[in-house]
Amino acid sequence: MNRIEREDALELDRADRLAAFRDRFVLPEGRLYLDGNSLGALPRATSDAVQRVVSAQWGQDLIAGWNAHDWIGLPQRIGAAIAPLIGAKPDEVLVCDSTSVNLFKLIAGALLLRPERSVILSEPGNFPTDLYVAEGVAALRGGVRIDLHEADSIAEAIDETTALVLLTHVHYTTGRMLDMAAITRAAHAKGALVLWDLSHSTGAVPVALNESGADLAVGCGYKYLNGGPGAPAFLFVAEALQTQIRQPLSGWMGHDSPFAFEDSYRPAARLDRFLCGTPSVIGMAALEAGVAQFRDVDLPALFAKGRALSALLVRLMGERCAGFGFQLASPGNAEERGCHVSFRHADAYPVCQALIARGVVGDFRAPDRLRFGMAPLYTRFADVFDAVAHLETVMRDRLWTEPRFQLRGRVT
Amino acid sequence: MNRIEREDALELDRADRLAAFRDRFVLPEGRLYLDGNSLGALPRATSDAVQRVVSAQWGQDLIAGWNAHDWIGLPQRIGAAIAPLIGAKPDEVLVCDSTSVNLFKLIAGALLLRPERSVILSEPGNFPTDLYVAEGVAALRGGVRIDLHEADSIAEAIDETTALVLLTHVHYTTGRMLDMAAITRAAHAKGALVLWDLSHSTGAVPVALNESGADLAVGCGYKYLNGGPGAPAFLFVAEALQTQIRQPLSGWMGHDSPFAFEDSYRPAARLDRFLCGTPSVIGMAALEAGVAQFRDVDLPALFAKGRALSALLVRLMGERCAGFGFQLASPGNAEERGCHVSFRHADAYPVCQALIARGVVGDFRAPDRLRFGMAPLYTRFADVFDAVAHLETVMRDRLWTEPRFQLRGRVT
Repeated sequence: MNRIEREDALELDRADRLAAFRDRFVLPEGRLYLDGNSLGALPRATSDAVQRVVSAQWGQDLIAGWNAHDWIGLPQRIGAAIAPLIGAKPDEVLVCDSTSVNLFKLIAGALLLRPERSVILSEPGNFPTDLYVAEGVAALRGGVRIDLHEADSIAEAIDETTALVLLTHVHYTTGRMLDMAAITRAAHAKGALVLWDLSHSTGAVPVALNESGADLAVGCGYKYLNGGPGAPAFLFVAEALQTQIRQPLSGWMGHDSPFAFEDSYRPAARLDRFLCGTPSVIGMAALEAGVAQFRDVDLPALFAKGRALSALLVRLMGERCAGFGFQLASPGNAEERGCHVSFRHADAYPVCQALIARGVVGDFRAPDRLRFGMAPLYTRFADVFDAVAHLETVMRDRLWTEPRFQLRGRVT
Repeated sequence: MNRIEREDALELDRADRLAAFRDRFVLPEGRLYLDGNSLGALPRATSDAVQRVVSAQWGQDLIAGWNAHDWIGLPQRIGAAIAPLIGAKPDEVLVCDSTSVNLFKLIAGALLLRPERSVILSEPGNFPTDLYVAEGVAALRGGVRIDLHEADSIAEAIDETTALVLLTHVHYTTGRMLDMAAITRAAHAKGALVLWDLSHSTGAVPVALNESGADLAVGCGYKYLNGGPGAPAFLFVAEALQTQIRQPLSGWMGHDSPFAFEDSYRPAARLDRFLCGTPSVIGMAALEAGVAQFRDVDLPALFAKGRALSALLVRLMGERCAGFGFQLASPGNAEERGCHVSFRHADAYPVCQALIARGVVGDFRAPDRLRFGMAPLYTRFADVFDAVAHLETVMRDRLWTEPRFQLRGRVT
């Protein structure tokens, strides 16, 4: 197999049927942005959408905006737009609060639904907020234990004490994708529920919640969905569970009749019971614009492009950066991972900083991971080529040893 | 005492030293907006502030925005700007999540701090979300009871079983203001904690959290703080409690070292432990612009104006709308209420709709309340006069009996 040259990458871009979607995004000149899995890029439509809500709707219609512009329907409307990306029905997805808050609702909801069971299973190294929120639920509830097992042995660890299996579908550093259907089946065989964190999956890889029989899921609005920094998150509750499950963040928007102002909580009939407080309308407007970018995308083609991008990165790293001490920390097979790829390197932090100084934005994840995210809606094959070429230069010329790249600042 | 005429109201506006602040807000022509206690008006500065965050910061700097524009510091920065409005220290106030979510954190935190106590005291007819969230905490925690007592007898009801007294400082319908210092003292005498909901107080009436020895508080960002629909909310934890109290919504942003990505939760040293997920940066930017409107306001003068506006409304209702069946549902003395005033009327719903049709925006609260909110930053004395004049016409000519005003739609 010949070495990949820049012209080959350009040829892949020319052949890419999705190439035009890139024009829908603001992508600053001189930057190779490979961090869309951390914060997605700004869709060109978003500024106007936000401005419309602020100036025309809030400014002119004030309180009447809730009905006149259906602000009140945003959680369901954006949820329905996300549903096809994750293999769910429109009325199974709701947009509200943050991923962490939604995790709390669903973890607590699962425990309340399995009161005779006391164990939450997860994996060590899961995204921290998932584990931290489980701890918080357990501390308030009492009598609940969190058991961590490596992902490969988690199915065997499920037993009749397991209330909930809490896993991230695509791991935030390694990008490893778990077998949703198999793990869900194993959980159900023992009567346990499963909660999937789809933060690094949604909009990047195929997700088949209904087909897998999944119970519960959450996901992030500011990564591949391009909803903006700190965008509202989403949650999924399978139709069959919606009338049984209760959740303790029982704010007024989840009441069956919020504007009756009753003293006692009566949960809304179905998914709306997962609402809590008043939704952030301006944040929702930005997320709605982000999700709308997926409307006329051929999803199988999008996911295939994501795999091709990550495969190209791994191949180029082998061809151009072998011998510099990088170790692939992601599965070698693109089918088994998300759209981001991680490498271990003892000097990952200064290497990442040296890349950023050259306009190549990936990110560092403690203690030793360099992570590159490819967003198939706007990342080009040539971007991947150029990023690896920069990395080759950084390593060959030892540019990362410059003192300015060593100092560890606040990293997000 | 002579009857107040329109010229008198105009004279009050001419004498108002705060009159110029109105120009900082977008207030649509032909509307008398007396619902700023439900959704505050749009500050003129907000559109640019939001646009800057969206287009210049997110669009151009992408992930680097978290540090470059100190997005990560928004919760503390806006909290510090709210602190002087509520008599708190800058490091006692944090902006994050919704009021409902923050209620959950603090109610649960109080129960965890008083594990040997089992009762939450509140009043019937408190704002629903406060009661609903207390129910949710109690359901998850188990062994907790919520006791409702009329506000006047709540101090006597506090005993050694009381973990938390949960009250709204200014009641959402009646506008009645409770004696924060006295109730807090009564609670402390029995070792109980107090949580004050300041949603209808902040920016409208003087609040002296520290002087009252208050423990905990929450408040809303979209009412008098003018943060926009569904704006993030704030919470207050007295300095002395910050290192002792734990809260169960333990998302990664509340970790002592969020970017160390540890498996176990270690709460941040102080108030930051009340953060949960990633803050909504766009929503925060709008709220920051809203709160900034208070920066150079003479607060005692602002609160005096609020009292004068509500006193004028009550007086005018007596002079012009007596005999139409309205009953004042708020305290008669302006010192004992917030900046909104409610009236009971059997036909409050169609009356409210008939007023809205004439451009007078107050609101209806089930089952029979007509509510008018005066926002001292932008409501004029003449607005109050004109609103009552419209109401007089609506009642005298029985305009509210038109069929189109009877049909109850979705009300927010």
